[in-house]
Amino acid sequence: MADKRLGYKVHRRILDETAVEEIAEKSEMTLSLSEKVKKSVRCSGPQLKRHLLDRLPVLSWLPHYSIKENLIGDLISGVSVGIMHLPQGMAYALLASVPPVFGLYSSLYPPLIYFIFGTSKHISIGTFAVMSVMIGGVTERLAPDSNFMIWDNVTNGSIVDAVSRDTERVRVATAVTFMTGLFQIMLGVLQFGFVVTYLSEPLVRGYTTGASIHVIVSQLKYTFGINPVRYSGPLSLIYTVVDLCYLLPQTNIGTLVVSIVVIICMVLAKELNTFLSKKIPVPLPMELLAVAIGTVISWQVNLEDKYGVAVVGNIPSGLLPPTFPPASLFGQVIGDAFALAVVGYGIAISLGRILAIKYGYQVDSNQELIALGLSNSVGSMFQCFSVSSSMSRTMVQVNTGGNTQIAAAVSSVIILCIVLWIGYLFESLPKAVLSAIIYVNLQGMLKQLVDIPVLWKKNKVDAVIWVSTFILTLLLNPDIGLAASIAFSMLTVIIRTQLPKYSLLGQVHGSDIYKPLEDFHQVKPVPGIVIFRSSATLYFANAEMYQDALKIKSGIDVAMILSTKKKLEEKIKKLEEQNVRNQQQEPDEDIAAIQVESEPAPTLPRAVILDLSPVNFLDTMGVKTLSNIHKGYASVGIDVFLTGCQTVVVENLQTGGFFDEKVTKSCLFSTIHDAVLHSQSSSEPNEDITWTQF
Amino acid sequence: MADKRLGYKVHRRILDETAVEEIAEKSEMTLSLSEKVKKSVRCSGPQLKRHLLDRLPVLSWLPHYSIKENLIGDLISGVSVGIMHLPQGMAYALLASVPPVFGLYSSLYPPLIYFIFGTSKHISIGTFAVMSVMIGGVTERLAPDSNFMIWDNVTNGSIVDAVSRDTERVRVATAVTFMTGLFQIMLGVLQFGFVVTYLSEPLVRGYTTGASIHVIVSQLKYTFGINPVRYSGPLSLIYTVVDLCYLLPQTNIGTLVVSIVVIICMVLAKELNTFLSKKIPVPLPMELLAVAIGTVISWQVNLEDKYGVAVVGNIPSGLLPPTFPPASLFGQVIGDAFALAVVGYGIAISLGRILAIKYGYQVDSNQELIALGLSNSVGSMFQCFSVSSSMSRTMVQVNTGGNTQIAAAVSSVIILCIVLWIGYLFESLPKAVLSAIIYVNLQGMLKQLVDIPVLWKKNKVDAVIWVSTFILTLLLNPDIGLAASIAFSMLTVIIRTQLPKYSLLGQVHGSDIYKPLEDFHQVKPVPGIVIFRSSATLYFANAEMYQDALKIKSGIDVAMILSTKKKLEEKIKKLEEQNVRNQQQEPDEDIAAIQVESEPAPTLPRAVILDLSPVNFLDTMGVKTLSNIHKGYASVGIDVFLTGCQTVVVENLQTGGFFDEKVTKSCLFSTIHDAVLHSQSSSEPNEDITWTQF
Repeated sequence: MADKRLGYKVHRRILDETAVEEIAEKSEMTLSLSEKVKKSVRCSGPQLKRHLLDRLPVLSWLPHYSIKENLIGDLISGVSVGIMHLPQGMAYALLASVPPVFGLYSSLYPPLIYFIFGTSKHISIGTFAVMSVMIGGVTERLAPDSNFMIWDNVTNGSIVDAVSRDTERVRVATAVTFMTGLFQIMLGVLQFGFVVTYLSEPLVRGYTTGASIHVIVSQLKYTFGINPVRYSGPLSLIYTVVDLCYLLPQTNIGTLVVSIVVIICMVLAKELNTFLSKKIPVPLPMELLAVAIGTVISWQVNLEDKYGVAVVGNIPSGLLPPTFPPASLFGQVIGDAFALAVVGYGIAISLGRILAIKYGYQVDSNQELIALGLSNSVGSMFQCFSVSSSMSRTMVQVNTGGNTQIAAAVSSVIILCIVLWIGYLFESLPKAVLSAIIYVNLQGMLKQLVDIPVLWKKNKVDAVIWVSTFILTLLLNPDIGLAASIAFSMLTVIIRTQLPKYSLLGQVHGSDIYKPLEDFHQVKPVPGIVIFRSSATLYFANAEMYQDALKIKSGIDVAMILSTKKKLEEKIKKLEEQNVRNQQQEPDEDIAAIQVESEPAPTLPRAVILDLSPVNFLDTMGVKTLSNIHKGYASVGIDVFLTGCQTVVVENLQTGGFFDEKVTKSCLFSTIHDAVLHSQSSSEPNEDITWTQF
Repeated sequence: MADKRLGYKVHRRILDETAVEEIAEKSEMTLSLSEKVKKSVRCSGPQLKRHLLDRLPVLSWLPHYSIKENLIGDLISGVSVGIMHLPQGMAYALLASVPPVFGLYSSLYPPLIYFIFGTSKHISIGTFAVMSVMIGGVTERLAPDSNFMIWDNVTNGSIVDAVSRDTERVRVATAVTFMTGLFQIMLGVLQFGFVVTYLSEPLVRGYTTGASIHVIVSQLKYTFGINPVRYSGPLSLIYTVVDLCYLLPQTNIGTLVVSIVVIICMVLAKELNTFLSKKIPVPLPMELLAVAIGTVISWQVNLEDKYGVAVVGNIPSGLLPPTFPPASLFGQVIGDAFALAVVGYGIAISLGRILAIKYGYQVDSNQELIALGLSNSVGSMFQCFSVSSSMSRTMVQVNTGGNTQIAAAVSSVIILCIVLWIGYLFESLPKAVLSAIIYVNLQGMLKQLVDIPVLWKKNKVDAVIWVSTFILTLLLNPDIGLAASIAFSMLTVIIRTQLPKYSLLGQVHGSDIYKPLEDFHQVKPVPGIVIFRSSATLYFANAEMYQDALKIKSGIDVAMILSTKKKLEEKIKKLEEQNVRNQQQEPDEDIAAIQVESEPAPTLPRAVILDLSPVNFLDTMGVKTLSNIHKGYASVGIDVFLTGCQTVVVENLQTGGFFDEKVTKSCLFSTIHDAVLHSQSSSEPNEDITWTQF
């Protein structure tokens, strides 16, 4: 530390707040509310243009699109992502309990809308496992199998009318998707993009891990080929698992074999891809291969008829005309839609931000809300269900050279071709293959479980947030679980301010630095001065504790001192009266005896310094507490000084009525050392030292 | 400020965190978890005795009771309070929808139990308006009139079987009271007394004002002599008021006249009491007078039969044997019981604390919970309903010379005499008189409405808490309203940390003090150094904003600088390639031209100092944000220093992985000035100044 030889050299007057304000010329708040409003609504030509570009980001980047630099990368990336969209779209449609083709629609329209309004260059908009399982919860709640039972003359039993059930489920899915989009647009227009800050990283990771368990459990029926009862509401996960265990003996062996084979192949293929990733630019489309091979085998062996393996079934070719979602259902899905809006936005924006930081550009959180909202609400008119961005597709889009949303547009064209011409080829694909694809895609989220020990070492509170989010999501389902988790993570903030560390500070020998006595061996208390600090803001939830801690740490119990004093005075008074009555000669001796015999008065410090530098704001309880402390100590002749108050804290003290004729700003000091010196100098006023500055 | 001439004189080495830890010898955390547990469960003889005295406070004060000093005051005070208990007990029983005699029981037993276990010397335990109206909500919900309709042969219509209805209501009231007590005991044993800190003063005052409106509305039926439908659940207050308006034409004139006369007399009597308070030691028992006069007139004129004025009715003499409350009802009242437990405790402890501060003693919050809990749960076996301490009675108890809970015991004896021998005398008392007594007692709470403008001037956030608590209590009823209000007041804490003030700091000329540039005219930025501070803790809810604010305030956009740099390098590279191909003679000129022609690089500061003194703790998001900022600026050659970190923040940085081989604790400084000097000296390493200390 040779370069620090310049030394820290200060020689100035001791400055209290009044003096600082005088010297530094404190400015008055001049901007009135009306001026602030005027300032914010001011509008001009260039601002209007800027506003338009902000709302339609495509206008600002597409004209500058460099075909030479980006087109090849975008094309390769778009085709790769398009190929992934096919199996994922169908698989996630299963999760959402709608026919597979609607997953393809959801992979087709929303990326095109996001292309126009989105600000991220890299995220792949489309189906997303967690949201799909949430939609599945809604569709199966509002259109359960039991509502669509018809009499079957062949088997002489009641069976499900799958066609009208699926039609109703698509109606429910589009209704909830439309509302999701509406919420997102509203939040975006109202500039509520900041709400995403409530979704801290431990929360999002715990949540996605919990939600992926829901996804897995909801897919087990396809893997084993069984039909458990659908539960909803809190604890439904546990009921479903119990039900699954009961039904295990009814497992369809053919389906289970298909599942196991596909899962093993997919895991191996994934390892191979990781191994090859440095040698080939584009990953092997293993999901597409699984789908293709699965379809061919299923078709050739006729798995459906021979072994009772459930297959995807009818995939209509062509597109459906746009229709407005059924408004009558809006009221029933409003809660789910809000949860979907928050989750979808949270996932998309966190992925978008990570990539924006990596590639050095900006994503606008409010515009992202609007872009996602339009993708959802417009998409819902084309029978899409709620979308967000998928981690796995986004990674492929980036790694295969995608540089702009042109890649997303290309992927939509690929899906369009599939829907129009070759979709029907996949009709014999076993559903178990799609489940296997879902499992393998969830690997990443399940691996997040190793977060827990890492996080525990880093920050215990964050580890607790992770685990409780995970558990709440498991038990209360992804919708209510999210709300409960956010509430819990906020409560941790309150609790942390309720468990502050209260310390007495001492001086680092020979310096103006003050540190907690218990943390350092060579920090010594300043004789006759108590310096106290709480590590947290002072407000209603810890105001009482602050006062108690100060009393315990400093050992000064004002009430006790006052009552001892009062008793002593009473005794003396009584003795004096007795003396007068008894006409004794030496009354003073007795009084002196009492004064000696009563507990010796503790040697009181001359000053108490409260370091308020960690205080973020003061509410009325905080101001009152400080006032009480000030008055209490003043009554036994101890000075109280406050140090390190931020501007806002000084203002809070002022409006809260802390200052009066007796208590002025001269009890406020910028640094602890100023207060210490002030206290020492005021008790030895005659020491004469010349100072040059000030 | 002549006494400050000593001056602030410091001359030392510039100290970073490493140096401070070295000099001050940072101690290691040595106390392990097991040691902590051992320490807290250690037990010895004197500690056991202390523990016993803590649990049975009566043992520590009663043996030292000074008959000479206190007995007369306690007797007068006990009689005065006992006289108040009679009308209040009967009136609040009406609120709780149980027969009046049960209000007398609630004034009789609980004070005796509190006498043994309570730590406050002054509060008067017994019936309390807000709690009574909450119990009324439960009793009328679980035992509504409609459940007890019987056929009346006289009128040939169905009438209410009042006897069995009232029996059931008493059972409900005792069940909820027992559960209330159980909750309070549990909370006390688990040392959860601190939860009362969530009940900040603005919240309690807003809440009691809102609840008193509920009380008034619930009493209007007695004042007007009408029978509105009983509503429950959110917004029931509004429905009830609407219903009352519809029924107004059916007002019983006799009842209304009685009400108006009594209210006017009571208000006048109250004014008289205030006027006389300095001349006579004991206030006139105006409530007792109202009850006595009301009873006599009602009996003589026969108001009940002649004018249809509803009277109190049967008051049985004697006491009932103890019975265990009906356990079958516990499940249905658990939510209400919890709300009652919190409200009752909140009111009692805040009154208790105010008086303890005034008279210089201690109340133990956990022991108070246990004392109240026992009063309720044991009381419930004697047919009491939930109690707390009443403001009006407590004030009388204190002002008439009550010094210990002996006064409360005396008041119980008075009530016992009334119940045993003269209770039946009050059977013809009109209910309207009791309502009038309730109104007049609520005056104080309604006057709290003037808090709003006062609070608005003092602290806007607290004013908002007051008003929203009031509105939430009105709309959602006292039980859910309380929970919602507490949640809201906690949310304000989160929101306040989300609206921090971000400031660039500058130096107060010639000193080591740094203040926000925008608040002071004579504060100048340090050339080449950006000093940044947020007024709030840095954690997940504002981590993004911190980074954005730093970028905007400092004007340094790392991403932009890096991308400009990259573009420039690419252009240069391209030109060089061209040059190689074109075999030009002066390639360097062109490159220079590009460097000039591209936007001029902004003059970057040499260091960014982040003042973290307002930070209370860091979570993983906070550490990550600081890490990102550090890495970002490092990549463009700007040093980042952190200053003012508390011990806990340094620990969070350490466990959060902020430090590595490159980033060490030498970027942490105790004061901003240290960091500034360090930055300045490291850029001018040759300056030679001798320093003496260190």
